[in-house]
Amino acid sequence: MIGLSSYAGVMENLTNSAEEQRPSSLVIHVLSPSQKSGSVGGFVLVHAGAGYHSESKAKEYKYACKRACQRAVDQLKAGALAVEAVAAALVELEDSPFTNAGMGSNLNLSGEIECDASIMDGRSLQFGAVGAISGIRNPVLVANRLLTEAQKGKLSAGRIPPCFLVGRGAHEWAVGHGIAPCPSENMATKFSLSAYKRNKRKMELAEKTGQGSKQAKKIRQSSVTENGPGSLDTVGAVVVDLEGNVAAGVSSGGLAMKHPGRVGQAANYGCGCWAENSCNLNPFSTAVSTSGCGEHLIRTMLARECATAMQAEDAHQALLEAMQNKFISSPFLASEERVLGGVIVLRCCRCVEAEPTPNIQGILVEFLWSHTTESMCVGYMSAQDSKAKTHISRLPPGTVPGQSLAIEGGVCRLMAAAE
Amino acid sequence: MIGLSSYAGVMENLTNSAEEQRPSSLVIHVLSPSQKSGSVGGFVLVHAGAGYHSESKAKEYKYACKRACQRAVDQLKAGALAVEAVAAALVELEDSPFTNAGMGSNLNLSGEIECDASIMDGRSLQFGAVGAISGIRNPVLVANRLLTEAQKGKLSAGRIPPCFLVGRGAHEWAVGHGIAPCPSENMATKFSLSAYKRNKRKMELAEKTGQGSKQAKKIRQSSVTENGPGSLDTVGAVVVDLEGNVAAGVSSGGLAMKHPGRVGQAANYGCGCWAENSCNLNPFSTAVSTSGCGEHLIRTMLARECATAMQAEDAHQALLEAMQNKFISSPFLASEERVLGGVIVLRCCRCVEAEPTPNIQGILVEFLWSHTTESMCVGYMSAQDSKAKTHISRLPPGTVPGQSLAIEGGVCRLMAAAE
Repeated sequence: MIGLSSYAGVMENLTNSAEEQRPSSLVIHVLSPSQKSGSVGGFVLVHAGAGYHSESKAKEYKYACKRACQRAVDQLKAGALAVEAVAAALVELEDSPFTNAGMGSNLNLSGEIECDASIMDGRSLQFGAVGAISGIRNPVLVANRLLTEAQKGKLSAGRIPPCFLVGRGAHEWAVGHGIAPCPSENMATKFSLSAYKRNKRKMELAEKTGQGSKQAKKIRQSSVTENGPGSLDTVGAVVVDLEGNVAAGVSSGGLAMKHPGRVGQAANYGCGCWAENSCNLNPFSTAVSTSGCGEHLIRTMLARECATAMQAEDAHQALLEAMQNKFISSPFLASEERVLGGVIVLRCCRCVEAEPTPNIQGILVEFLWSHTTESMCVGYMSAQDSKAKTHISRLPPGTVPGQSLAIEGGVCRLMAAAE
Repeated sequence: MIGLSSYAGVMENLTNSAEEQRPSSLVIHVLSPSQKSGSVGGFVLVHAGAGYHSESKAKEYKYACKRACQRAVDQLKAGALAVEAVAAALVELEDSPFTNAGMGSNLNLSGEIECDASIMDGRSLQFGAVGAISGIRNPVLVANRLLTEAQKGKLSAGRIPPCFLVGRGAHEWAVGHGIAPCPSENMATKFSLSAYKRNKRKMELAEKTGQGSKQAKKIRQSSVTENGPGSLDTVGAVVVDLEGNVAAGVSSGGLAMKHPGRVGQAANYGCGCWAENSCNLNPFSTAVSTSGCGEHLIRTMLARECATAMQAEDAHQALLEAMQNKFISSPFLASEERVLGGVIVLRCCRCVEAEPTPNIQGILVEFLWSHTTESMCVGYMSAQDSKAKTHISRLPPGTVPGQSLAIEGGVCRLMAAAE
């Protein structure tokens, strides 16, 4: 174990200049260096969805990301493991009424809220997930509790503890484990209710109109799920802690007007999040969280694909190729016109620093995000920063969502005295 | 497209003699050659679970496999695609009261039946799954219907069709799509009800006894889920059709005494089944179906791992290594004493035959099964056979379930005149 006794916070330009923003280019977000000491460390990157973030609500999305980073860092400073910091960040994002997770989630076809969430610990490789769960304010806490309960080993009479619970059973398990229920009507917001009414009218109009008519075709093309604000704003977080452990999590209210019982990528192993500490085979620890159209992210297993890709030498190139070949051009989505999603990625490895003094061990953290949706809202912070940076990444003007991508990121060095 | 105009049914010995059965060895099951002509073809391999199959019930398990193969072959002869033949085979296996799928499924902690099922089409790469569904006699038909509905494209108002539904919502969707409901009590059998009562007593005793006592430890070790008959008997099928398309499916009642809402590998993408036609990148078409402890199969994503491994040249060696390295010794299951599961695998490629006449195109089908559980019941049949072969594969005496494995299989050539 390495205790991080000091932090440089140096952000390095990998390939391009800071303000340049074009498709397939890496824009570097430079954290101002801070040299505070103390045996704390770690880094968090969060997202408030790959979808469409209106300028008018940009402030709220950024604020939610900022607070989520702060919550994770509070945990890291208190000595928490990466997985606990991920859960803390996600609780904050779920509690925001502006994100499509927890409070303010999209309503389904029946006007109900059903949420998906999962969390993965790169150290133990344990995974916990809930799907289509109702009446729980923070679905990620149920996923996290499943993960921690599974680590305790078998249940009575040799029964294997579950890693994935859905629906009413998931709700009952949560309440039975001390997680307070929350009436579903308290989780809806003015915004989610009015979006539901608007979408319902749109659907009724589409279904009333003859299937073959021009109007029907037009309505078919104008989606309730692809372009509306708040429709794809799954939230997620990836963290590396002071011991170098990684973790990842994701939480979602799912697609607007989804069928009751529909489960998206946020509850699917390998699809919504992935975290794996480095080992003999893998030089890098990796953590990934995805957002976007759940069915596309499931069928491409995007979280795990990106994590696997990130073992290549050049992180930026690896993510670019993964998003292009394993997502936009994936044979699994050959019949889809527009492939909608985004990822946040964190990878780290041990390294020896020459500065400020020789033979100082450290952790090199590379963090990236990429999306094919119009925009993606992210925030990031190290345990030594006074506040988080936030950013709404957008596809360059003139490019087509679902066919083009944006990719950005940065580098951060966590320095630690060798023990 | 190649129409299979004749079928040789030659089974070839890959490495070892026919009757030899030792761990890590390939036992070849030789189909008697038949030379009937006709433009039909295809091959099916099914399993009635990796778990424990008592000698006393061997006949029923084999009979269920035999009938399932026949149903698939009936479909293939009628010109059905692989995915339809898979669904037909699984319906038969679900209808057997002896298997832990559909009729006669394990009861959960509340005494209810909740089923998981999924199906994947190697041609379209579409996937459909249901989790924790109640009151439907044949869960695989719901999974298959999700797959076919998704192929029709978007729903009204641009909504993306679901690929994975759970719980009550899944039940309602099924009924809404014309699949008849079946009262849950009609799906329980004398056997499943008595197993439930026995397990419940075992659990109550285990929970009453102090956690630290020797007796508690003993009861903890004697599992309700690992060794009992019928406890891990997920069913599955893999098929190649006359056009060379592959498909795979899986259906399960889940672990005995599972928590309500628990979803196992049978509903998880990449974990319960996998099917992928050959393409530029992959020389072989592959189809895999898994069985065993759902949590182990989820966390190792065993179906997809085996399918990926099967692109290597030596099918037997590839499966052996995958079962050893990606399952028994998987870092994802490092904390598990016993890793319980099994797979059936089918892979095929186009080939040119020298016999009976030169330049005849054909399909070389290699089929294998492997398991770490005490036993696994399989059946297989080609469209030209008059009846299926069945077999209960067992770990060699003296080896430890969950730490050792058995691997067997065979080869079959489907010959077709080049068009």
